[in-house]
Amino acid sequence: MSAQILPHEAPEALVERLALAGRAAQRRLAQLPDEAKAAGLRAAAQALRDDAPEILAANARDVAAGEANGLTGAMLDRLRLDPARLAGIADAVAQVAALPDPVGQVIDSSVPPSGLHLSRVRVPIGLIGIIYESRPNVTADAAALCLRSGNAALLRGGSEAVQSNHAIHAALTRGLVSAGIPAEAIQLIPTQDRAVVGAMLTAAGLVDMIVPRGGKSLVARVQADARVPVLAHLDGICHTYIHEAADPAMARAIALNAKMRRTGICGAMETLLLDARFPQSGDVVGALLDAGCELRGDARARALDPRILPAGANDWDTEYLDAILSVAVVDGLDAALDHIALHSSHHTDAIVTADAAVAERFLNAVDSAIVMVNASTQFADGGEFGLGAEIGIATGRLHARGPVALEGLTTYKWVVRGTGQTRP
Amino acid sequence: MSAQILPHEAPEALVERLALAGRAAQRRLAQLPDEAKAAGLRAAAQALRDDAPEILAANARDVAAGEANGLTGAMLDRLRLDPARLAGIADAVAQVAALPDPVGQVIDSSVPPSGLHLSRVRVPIGLIGIIYESRPNVTADAAALCLRSGNAALLRGGSEAVQSNHAIHAALTRGLVSAGIPAEAIQLIPTQDRAVVGAMLTAAGLVDMIVPRGGKSLVARVQADARVPVLAHLDGICHTYIHEAADPAMARAIALNAKMRRTGICGAMETLLLDARFPQSGDVVGALLDAGCELRGDARARALDPRILPAGANDWDTEYLDAILSVAVVDGLDAALDHIALHSSHHTDAIVTADAAVAERFLNAVDSAIVMVNASTQFADGGEFGLGAEIGIATGRLHARGPVALEGLTTYKWVVRGTGQTRP
Repeated sequence: MSAQILPHEAPEALVERLALAGRAAQRRLAQLPDEAKAAGLRAAAQALRDDAPEILAANARDVAAGEANGLTGAMLDRLRLDPARLAGIADAVAQVAALPDPVGQVIDSSVPPSGLHLSRVRVPIGLIGIIYESRPNVTADAAALCLRSGNAALLRGGSEAVQSNHAIHAALTRGLVSAGIPAEAIQLIPTQDRAVVGAMLTAAGLVDMIVPRGGKSLVARVQADARVPVLAHLDGICHTYIHEAADPAMARAIALNAKMRRTGICGAMETLLLDARFPQSGDVVGALLDAGCELRGDARARALDPRILPAGANDWDTEYLDAILSVAVVDGLDAALDHIALHSSHHTDAIVTADAAVAERFLNAVDSAIVMVNASTQFADGGEFGLGAEIGIATGRLHARGPVALEGLTTYKWVVRGTGQTRP
Repeated sequence: MSAQILPHEAPEALVERLALAGRAAQRRLAQLPDEAKAAGLRAAAQALRDDAPEILAANARDVAAGEANGLTGAMLDRLRLDPARLAGIADAVAQVAALPDPVGQVIDSSVPPSGLHLSRVRVPIGLIGIIYESRPNVTADAAALCLRSGNAALLRGGSEAVQSNHAIHAALTRGLVSAGIPAEAIQLIPTQDRAVVGAMLTAAGLVDMIVPRGGKSLVARVQADARVPVLAHLDGICHTYIHEAADPAMARAIALNAKMRRTGICGAMETLLLDARFPQSGDVVGALLDAGCELRGDARARALDPRILPAGANDWDTEYLDAILSVAVVDGLDAALDHIALHSSHHTDAIVTADAAVAERFLNAVDSAIVMVNASTQFADGGEFGLGAEIGIATGRLHARGPVALEGLTTYKWVVRGTGQTRP
């Protein structure tokens, strides 16, 4: 079922051939009714369940190879599947099938003086390239979201997960084809040649958008080399500012949750800004330290607790993804806004305050994809935002921002219905 | 008032300095109430009227230099201002002031199970780079649209219009500043050094979007070299397909209007597809020929009228922008769709038919920014679409498609209002 490489086929030729096949499949997909796409995804979910022995065996081979090649424990954990994880992957595909189809939705409509009936109607983007690392679940997740929104996908997974990805892709494809979906709607790049990634990134006109899923070095390479639009975030340097009018218990609970619930996600707080007039700052930092978090502070923060280490200049621009937090004391809202404007990665930034006017000023002035008042930055997630799933979180300014799900995988066209109008 | 070049300043340094000034001005602009932006634009319109003698004198110097340098008549016409044209430019700025401000509009909102109040709120994109050629009106048009939507603009006009652009920019700026708008919100690049264009195109993180306004060679260069998102259309190879069930009089009127009303606009029809079963094709091509249009046809089209010249292979991919039209006879809807899929530039494509089911199939299957039934492709225009004005027409797939006006110059952020929620 998987795509093959032709003898002596150059990376650019491979990408062009697969992209043209994917685009042709996407045009057929675009003509299918909503229910056909949903039925295809339900069949794909069932095929993943049916193929569990083969998929787990393939994954075991990847894990064994990874161990032999000295992968770190965290990388092996991202790679490893077990029956529960695989069932979760299949369930997620079935859940995407149950999401409402964005294609065909009318965004708005109008009748200008010419009498033309205008409407903007959501349509798929086309062919989405997904470039990812060791997590084999991305093969199913990304494919399901692309297909649900009428797009074709060109998947390029990491070499660590090559056996797992092929097994998952084979199951997905069998399920989709059994429901009448073209096999080329979801294609897995059949080689680990890194030059193919470069060819995908520069395939303007063939690949409509690239979504990188992985660590910072992958995203940075994709952003640097792509000539195709990229939907991504490079990092999540998320701030929480505790205003002087914050409720003390709320401030402590939110700070603890924003940092410590899961330290490795992009919505985890990386810098805590404590207002100099907030009386309970010592309690907040004490709770974080007691919870096992390493704090790195400026001079005024360090005066709050002797356990706080000195922060270096780089700490304010560092995404730790770990139980480490930079802490600064600031003089009021404007100083907090200045710090955030200088150091935020425009992902998610939050304020804790009981002063509604201060909250509105913060929400208005902070230029990030997500701005929050009185909530943990760890809520920055498509599932928590009610999107059902997410293809990623975007910190770029165009097209889609923040958690991106099915709507962000569509564009629109203007549909104009006339009765013979000519322009005067 | 205009920005200055510092001694020995490299193009990249100039762009960075102006971009940072523009971004700082944009942040102040974003905090101003809607009425302040509108008042600024009204003052700018008045300043353009007040400065009419200076602007017309500057323009006369540009025109004289252009004549001395051998500019073509069409280029001189685009460059030349007269009191009526200048009044039109000022009126257009005042009209943009009267358009509704998109900033702050709530796109949608929801309350997921966490109880967080989520909303997506429109915000400006940031700093927009405008790269244009000989039309001095772009200086005012683009600046007004950017400012109305809360963005700062970095304008780089053509060398032919350098005196006119500086005079218009000086008037605009005086008006804006008199109403409390930062002068750096609208900056004109103070040099014609072409390397500055390259520096703008690669200023990722400094310039948020580039809008090229000009001929195909300018747009092609911008699209090829830009590392910043570009909003543009390379060309408008617009098709009209006359289906067998078309009303004959409507077909003739639409074909004539789509081609001949104005041949030089991007929404002008460039290829006419006549269904082999449409009985009155001879009348349609006869009317076009009688109106002075040169027709270039395939063999079956040429059989309709001896005045039709033979089309070469390139004609199906040529934007004439002139009284020239390629004509093909096709066998039914699917053949028309195949031709359009192969040759359309995804700008505007239309069908003329009285068969509603065929019309819907066409509207659904044609993958262009604008799809029309029973209307002239010359309606492809932001003003005709009720947008009040347009910064351009986009044929890319992401962010905004078709005519782009104020909404397309905004993005959104997620605003999250909590009551102390932490994520479980």
